[in-house]
Amino acid sequence: MVLQSVGARGVCTLTLNRPRQYNALSDAVLDELDAALLASGENPEVRCVVIAANGPAFCAGHDLRELRASEDRRVHEATFARCSGLMQRIVAHPVPVIARVQGLATAAGCQLVASCDLAVAAERAQFAVSGIRAGLFCSTPAVALSRAIAPKRAFEMLVTGDFIDAVTARDWGLVNAVVTDAALDEGVARYTDSICAKSRHAIRRGKALFHRQIERPLAEAYADASEAITCDLSSHDAREGIDAFLEKRAPHWRDR
Amino acid sequence: MVLQSVGARGVCTLTLNRPRQYNALSDAVLDELDAALLASGENPEVRCVVIAANGPAFCAGHDLRELRASEDRRVHEATFARCSGLMQRIVAHPVPVIARVQGLATAAGCQLVASCDLAVAAERAQFAVSGIRAGLFCSTPAVALSRAIAPKRAFEMLVTGDFIDAVTARDWGLVNAVVTDAALDEGVARYTDSICAKSRHAIRRGKALFHRQIERPLAEAYADASEAITCDLSSHDAREGIDAFLEKRAPHWRDR
Amino acid sequence: MVLQSVGARGVCTLTLNRPRQYNALSDAVLDELDAALLASGENPEVRCVVIAANGPAFCAGHDLRELRASEDRRVHEATFARCSGLMQRIVAHPVPVIARVQGLATAAGCQLVASCDLAVAAERAQFAVSGIRAGLFCSTPAVALSRAIAPKRAFEMLVTGDFIDAVTARDWGLVNAVVTDAALDEGVARYTDSICAKSRHAIRRGKALFHRQIERPLAEAYADASEAITCDLSSHDAREGIDAFLEKRAPHWRDR
Repeated sequence: MVLQSVGARGVCTLTLNRPRQYNALSDAVLDELDAALLASGENPEVRCVVIAANGPAFCAGHDLRELRASEDRRVHEATFARCSGLMQRIVAHPVPVIARVQGLATAAGCQLVASCDLAVAAERAQFAVSGIRAGLFCSTPAVALSRAIAPKRAFEMLVTGDFIDAVTARDWGLVNAVVTDAALDEGVARYTDSICAKSRHAIRRGKALFHRQIERPLAEAYADASEAITCDLSSHDAREGIDAFLEKRAPHWRDR
Repeated sequence: MVLQSVGARGVCTLTLNRPRQYNALSDAVLDELDAALLASGENPEVRCVVIAANGPAFCAGHDLRELRASEDRRVHEATFARCSGLMQRIVAHPVPVIARVQGLATAAGCQLVASCDLAVAAERAQFAVSGIRAGLFCSTPAVALSRAIAPKRAFEMLVTGDFIDAVTARDWGLVNAVVTDAALDEGVARYTDSICAKSRHAIRRGKALFHRQIERPLAEAYADASEAITCDLSSHDAREGIDAFLEKRAPHWRDR
Repeated sequence: MVLQSVGARGVCTLTLNRPRQYNALSDAVLDELDAALLASGENPEVRCVVIAANGPAFCAGHDLRELRASEDRRVHEATFARCSGLMQRIVAHPVPVIARVQGLATAAGCQLVASCDLAVAAERAQFAVSGIRAGLFCSTPAVALSRAIAPKRAFEMLVTGDFIDAVTARDWGLVNAVVTDAALDEGVARYTDSICAKSRHAIRRGKALFHRQIERPLAEAYADASEAITCDLSSHDAREGIDAFLEKRAPHWRDR
């Protein structure tokens, strides 16, 4: 249900492939996507991950039929633990994770976009946290959404359940770029090409520091970041990269 | 000084009614508004609260004449405790609180807008944290403002005391929507209608979670939200709402 | 290497003056700028500080040649401690610090802009955190940048190293205003004039509170701010400023 491929340059693409179910996140899909993310993080060839989807929807969130099939609280608990774990795995993933949003992203599907490091949307993409329409406030999506966009905008989306279009999502900071539907791969490649041309070691260290420091008070964040950059400076790639810059030549990354 | 009404659908409107004093927040007004908010939160019929105002100004902040009438530090302390308590009561209010901003909102009046969950502004509305012009930095408004908009923008407003117009307020995330002066009620109704059509139970649980999780590190926020949504899923309204969605019919909320 | 001047109204201008080195932050420049900031903060005549620069670049960040001249980790550690200390001194500076960005601001140069309380950019200014291009993730700049703009935008800048133009920087909240290259001094003066017309005491107290409360949970922030404003209200300048406002006359600040 999740197609996996790793391209020549190290772009790992994970494609949700339950188009008729609008790529709903059943327990099986959550497990498969989580396992694929874990594996991609352990693959030294992978330099960035793209989460894509087939069909008219990017992802419609949880599988409501499956959620209603059980009345057992422990089953539900496991489902949301699985999903929250997946979202945090994206944040903790060693390399950047990019959402390629070709269509509707709702509820946990919108959370998936918010949780990725970067997101590129096609013009026809739309975003909503629509659980409230079905009597279930999108509490877990709220965690990711309220960290990505301004609070009044996040709250509006959560209590109305209304869609915003791709341009609004970009203006609010939920996605990085909007491109025509036909140019979506090109729009994603702008980011993957850029990331693949960088030192994997430096990107990896940087992503971890980025997410770590953002939760800390300023002085602690600076202590952490200062130590990280001091340490990074003695890496092969930083020394090589700075030398290449000073010598006006292309750098040769060691990467591991 | 604060008019109260509860409409048929459960919209409680609290209207500041000291138009000639630009709806300044005297101790008496603060107490009345706080009591009205408390009462509206305990009224099971109320599904959302609108804070509105009569006259050319939405609210000009503290009553400066009253503030200067006493030199007693304990009197001032009580005033600001009252006001900070009111702002936090809005955040803690069980249902969404919406600012209906028909005119000028300055100092603690701007804080009132920033503290509401949602805000709709008329085109002629303007916003400033202008205490600094009178030698008194808007410290308490800074708390709400710096959580609503980007820090450099909040700082600019606080040290210049300058007004921003309604469109800028929307572009910065301080208000959700701007409408023509004549369409203000309609603009507010877009939100109240949407909220009143939802499960009150779900909105209530969701609002509390939203404000709780936003102050926590990511992992703690997810632990809280996962538990909340697991618990919510066994509520009547979530089960009914999901069933209605799957059966393509309108849901019937129990609401309590 | 850092020119210093204090104007008649109390505007202290610190001008980076290594134009041929794109105002790179060598250890010597960092020390000089830090000492100048410290001195300006102790000078009771100073009401605000402008950080400006000569040449085509505002600041190109660390001096890469100097960084590579040593392999000693303790040397690097001292450099980044120096730089992180400088950035935090700006935040802790008693009066507002404004970046006057006339050209390129990259890496720690972009961090310098992000760290200032306010920033005004010329149209030709551009911003990047470009360390990743040289194999060194901008970890310390990430601290300031991710507190100034939305996370997905900060992350994009950090992993691509790409430039954003001045208008984008304004739309994202990294700078407060963009003006034509010829009108840069005028654009900066709009802020310095406004700040110099205010009570220095009130600005000083307000800036400290602003940065202090932003790191705290809501209830603690309100407790701090309520105490601060209660205390401020008994200052000469607040009493004079409010009286002047009520009497519709210009206030006379005591300022100390």
